[in-house]
Amino acid sequence: MTSEFELIARYFTPAAPGSRAGVALGVGDDCALLVPRRGSRLAVSVDTSVAEVHFPTAAPAESIGHRALAVSLSDLAAMGAEARWCLMALAMTDADDTWLSNFARGFHGLCEASGTSLVGGDVTRGELAIGVTVMGEVPEGQALTRGGSRPGDVLAVTGALGGGAGGLALWQRGEKDLEHPLLVRYLRPQPRLGAGQALRGLATAAIDISDGLLADLGHVLAASGVGARVDVEALPLAEGLLHALGPERAQQAALGGGDDYELLVSLPADALEEATRRLDGLGLALTPIGTITAEPGLSGVADTALVGWQHFGAADVKRGAT
Amino acid sequence: MTSEFELIARYFTPAAPGSRAGVALGVGDDCALLVPRRGSRLAVSVDTSVAEVHFPTAAPAESIGHRALAVSLSDLAAMGAEARWCLMALAMTDADDTWLSNFARGFHGLCEASGTSLVGGDVTRGELAIGVTVMGEVPEGQALTRGGSRPGDVLAVTGALGGGAGGLALWQRGEKDLEHPLLVRYLRPQPRLGAGQALRGLATAAIDISDGLLADLGHVLAASGVGARVDVEALPLAEGLLHALGPERAQQAALGGGDDYELLVSLPADALEEATRRLDGLGLALTPIGTITAEPGLSGVADTALVGWQHFGAADVKRGAT
Repeated sequence: MTSEFELIARYFTPAAPGSRAGVALGVGDDCALLVPRRGSRLAVSVDTSVAEVHFPTAAPAESIGHRALAVSLSDLAAMGAEARWCLMALAMTDADDTWLSNFARGFHGLCEASGTSLVGGDVTRGELAIGVTVMGEVPEGQALTRGGSRPGDVLAVTGALGGGAGGLALWQRGEKDLEHPLLVRYLRPQPRLGAGQALRGLATAAIDISDGLLADLGHVLAASGVGARVDVEALPLAEGLLHALGPERAQQAALGGGDDYELLVSLPADALEEATRRLDGLGLALTPIGTITAEPGLSGVADTALVGWQHFGAADVKRGAT
Repeated sequence: MTSEFELIARYFTPAAPGSRAGVALGVGDDCALLVPRRGSRLAVSVDTSVAEVHFPTAAPAESIGHRALAVSLSDLAAMGAEARWCLMALAMTDADDTWLSNFARGFHGLCEASGTSLVGGDVTRGELAIGVTVMGEVPEGQALTRGGSRPGDVLAVTGALGGGAGGLALWQRGEKDLEHPLLVRYLRPQPRLGAGQALRGLATAAIDISDGLLADLGHVLAASGVGARVDVEALPLAEGLLHALGPERAQQAALGGGDDYELLVSLPADALEEATRRLDGLGLALTPIGTITAEPGLSGVADTALVGWQHFGAADVKRGAT
């Protein structure tokens, strides 16, 4: 195996140090040295993507690199934070040059698109897994948390739902057209960083949909001490989902399927129009899907739908969290 | 397997939020929100410890937890940074309550001793591995890097060398007295955070000895564009090392064994006394072991010693980096 130092030097040392804003010292010393902005909170999160747990080992290396960063950036988006820096911990069994080159292209591509500087990491022997720590910034007092939903607030989601689960289902059926809209959703999710920042000052709570709409809504309700009524008919379904899964499973995918990396937010009814306008400016839909209620619990969703997704298919690859 | 959320809640949610300096929002949301100090650089690093690569799976869980954090904190020490926050990415095959409880005790114990707040993380299924991201702070312009060594500088190390490799050798021979000084060194290394901070303004370069003295010295020489002469007889050997390994292998362990987590620094000759005095105040020795030279390369070390360590024993567990 090529040494860690050579691997890092070859694939993970950014080529243009001058463009890395807020980096006083990048890859190559014991630590990176970063320059936080005054008046900002530092938002930090880590997510690990494990082969055959979170993604198929056989997925294109470029999308594995993109996706590992995307799922972490999605947490910054959910706080309304701007992405700034990341660290990558890569475990792999051997060092394949072609694979690494493609993986790095996917990772660096999303770094560039999101304004994130890779400032360090490590490479170890082990089953393929990628741990990505992201660091972002949000002005003091403006972070979106899970705990601010109030009775009467509108529940809304960005973009469309069910694409992650639908894409995985297609992949497992052997679909190999990587431009199929559902595969694009699953393999190359787009963290909603711009949307999160645009919703500062409007949303009362936010979370990214990684575990599935209902599971993530549950986190918001618990943190906010409220309940919700969901209008299942209003859920925006990902392009191609109905055709691929049929109406029942499409709805289950949207409710429980996970890996969508859209934002679920609550906001006062009178802020919906302005929020919709701002996201429209980003080319992104904001769809009301229910209401926050004072009484705890969830209404509007059939019990069968709540558990339906878990019984759907025999996915080899699924989220490992639960 | 118990759900990720339950595990995190049970073992990795700090009990005393009030004591967590600089934490505006801790574990439990999409990101933690941290409050960096004005005028400080943020020092960040990640290290992953993989079972059977970086530590024996059968090691006490408490020491595995301690050690995983220690190796990351050691990078902060090498920058002269103060430890502030950390994130932990834990991969494990199943959730054993006793093991996790002990692991968490070791991790939290070092958090407390080092003033580090655990502010987030994730738990995934996979072979046992712990990725720890550490974040610290160092006043602007005062960070110690690898690149500042100048010809004529004294080379010096904190504490004693060879304990990591010696402890591993003992462990592999079946030694189970966890209070043996070499096992203490190997299983519960102490990151030299106080020493790193004390050497600000005196040391011209610093690195922590994780890959072995000669390998890490090589990084300093390359970054500084200088060479060094090492006085092998001057190396401070860890307590019990001579007795455990005999003189030849003890010297090889000190030169190439790795996992010592002492600091290797260079400093002007006239700063040595003050540096020694400061570290003495911390109960830590600072031993001169050589000199920085203008001509590149390394002298004073026999070629056989350079490669000796790699041929010593048939360690199952060794650093996976090279």
